[in-house]
Amino acid sequence: MCKSPLISQSIKQKIDDAKLITLVTHIRPDGDAVGSVIGFAETLRGNGKEVHIAFEETLPVRFRFLKEKEEKKQSAQKGIILTVDCADQGRLPKAFAEQHIDINIDHHATNTNFGELNYVNPKAAATAEIITDLLMEWEMPISPTAANALLMGIITDTIGFRTPNTTPHTLNTAAALIEKGASLTDMYQRSLSDMTWEASLLWGFALNKLQKEGKIIYTVITCEDRKKSGFTGRDDADLTNFLSSIQEAEISILFNQQNENLVKVSWRSRSNVNVANLASQFGGGGHPAAAGAEIKLSLQETQQKVLAVTKSYLLQYENQE
Amino acid sequence: MCKSPLISQSIKQKIDDAKLITLVTHIRPDGDAVGSVIGFAETLRGNGKEVHIAFEETLPVRFRFLKEKEEKKQSAQKGIILTVDCADQGRLPKAFAEQHIDINIDHHATNTNFGELNYVNPKAAATAEIITDLLMEWEMPISPTAANALLMGIITDTIGFRTPNTTPHTLNTAAALIEKGASLTDMYQRSLSDMTWEASLLWGFALNKLQKEGKIIYTVITCEDRKKSGFTGRDDADLTNFLSSIQEAEISILFNQQNENLVKVSWRSRSNVNVANLASQFGGGGHPAAAGAEIKLSLQETQQKVLAVTKSYLLQYENQE
Repeated sequence: MCKSPLISQSIKQKIDDAKLITLVTHIRPDGDAVGSVIGFAETLRGNGKEVHIAFEETLPVRFRFLKEKEEKKQSAQKGIILTVDCADQGRLPKAFAEQHIDINIDHHATNTNFGELNYVNPKAAATAEIITDLLMEWEMPISPTAANALLMGIITDTIGFRTPNTTPHTLNTAAALIEKGASLTDMYQRSLSDMTWEASLLWGFALNKLQKEGKIIYTVITCEDRKKSGFTGRDDADLTNFLSSIQEAEISILFNQQNENLVKVSWRSRSNVNVANLASQFGGGGHPAAAGAEIKLSLQETQQKVLAVTKSYLLQYENQE
Repeated sequence: MCKSPLISQSIKQKIDDAKLITLVTHIRPDGDAVGSVIGFAETLRGNGKEVHIAFEETLPVRFRFLKEKEEKKQSAQKGIILTVDCADQGRLPKAFAEQHIDINIDHHATNTNFGELNYVNPKAAATAEIITDLLMEWEMPISPTAANALLMGIITDTIGFRTPNTTPHTLNTAAALIEKGASLTDMYQRSLSDMTWEASLLWGFALNKLQKEGKIIYTVITCEDRKKSGFTGRDDADLTNFLSSIQEAEISILFNQQNENLVKVSWRSRSNVNVANLASQFGGGGHPAAAGAEIKLSLQETQQKVLAVTKSYLLQYENQE
């Protein structure tokens, strides 16, 4: 962990001295990445700095509610590069993979400290929480737009303050952002609770096939379901999280068919059963409570194998208890 | 609004002087009612007071995770009666409907100030937020059990901090309770995100029948669905909230069949369309964004009438815009 008042002052000095600041975050940016970039950029601009934002492509559509599309500009200035929410330089957009990174601000414990100055605080629930801390320490005025972006970063990374890394400081920081004009209700609705019509139809198809075998609850998303619902997202429309919220599911499994011979399997555990061990048996991996694997078999074969292995693993675990 | 440092000190004095304190809340207690009672009782007991809790029946099963069942005791002491989270004396358990109420602590704007001392703060997101404020003002040590109960009260009444009455003070109060040993993740999971197997099956049946007509999205829970799923709850298993989270639903409607000739209808609005006006046409009522009615017709007739009225109301609204 690299974090001290000294470093935060060095970062401030570097920003003060820079003619141009280019803000970058990881590819496929999530809510915390986008919120951190927008909130930081807005605030620095409000303090008279020239700031460029370099998303992998553009501001992702689902976060456009934060502000209008960012103009791509060229500048005559030579500036500094500041990365946020990126643990590893290899996850930056290609143009930045080999460049000198001046400042690296992040909350991932796995951060490789690839910057000249590194401010990494793994105790923060979100990078947006760190950015807010820094801006307040530097006494920079935070506008309502910036406050909304930073609050969005915090609530998306904590799924609305419900992940275990949410601390009292996280809540106090969110409170401070609301004081500065952010709307918690609005950010919550736009970034977390809203569903699309297509995703809702997909939920209907998937939940209508819910199965329970002992302490294992599972269901299936077929290619047919995706087609009928019109759901084009690459992900599971948050169904994995829904399954793991069922009290009776010691283990929940989502079989997400990708094509005739490929199934993405996601395991979740509500107990001490380590599902990463299950995923690794199928060439996947993950955490004790959340793991996944991609299995190159038909849906039927995948289900048979995965259920058999999961059941015997659970039995083995129960006999050890 | 009756709230001042003076009143909080008078309440403290009355509690200090009392030999026995009986804590009461409204019938059909929700999370805030239960959390306020348990959190307050635990703290007062920790400070050496004798406290009785008088729930309508017993501590509701779904809140038993907070503590073991409350023993019903008789006491020789004559004590004071303190109500929490109850806006109207008529909503107290029958035994208290006519009694002298010494202290009334609540956050409902409609509170009738039925107590001798009334501490009503409609700006608080939950009564548990007020109780926490008072306990901290009185410098009473709050145990982890009490902190969990109070935090549960806050997060259930704000649906995890997402209702518009959540203030910076609400978040700061929650942060203080975590500092005192409450677990936000645990309370969130147990009181908000957990689903039962039966409710999940009901979701599958209901979402598999999702319909969209223009800007109206609706679905149905039939008696058959309830029977097949085994869901015995009186409510809608939170399906109304799910429907209203669908972005495309300017108005969402849940038809919840009670028997052959009775359907509970719930409307939700995501725009400025006032659905209370719709509900009132069917003898119901509610708020502009959330309203309901009980309609004594078959499911089919109810759907036809409600959809026709809702569509024409929406058309009328759009023509006015």
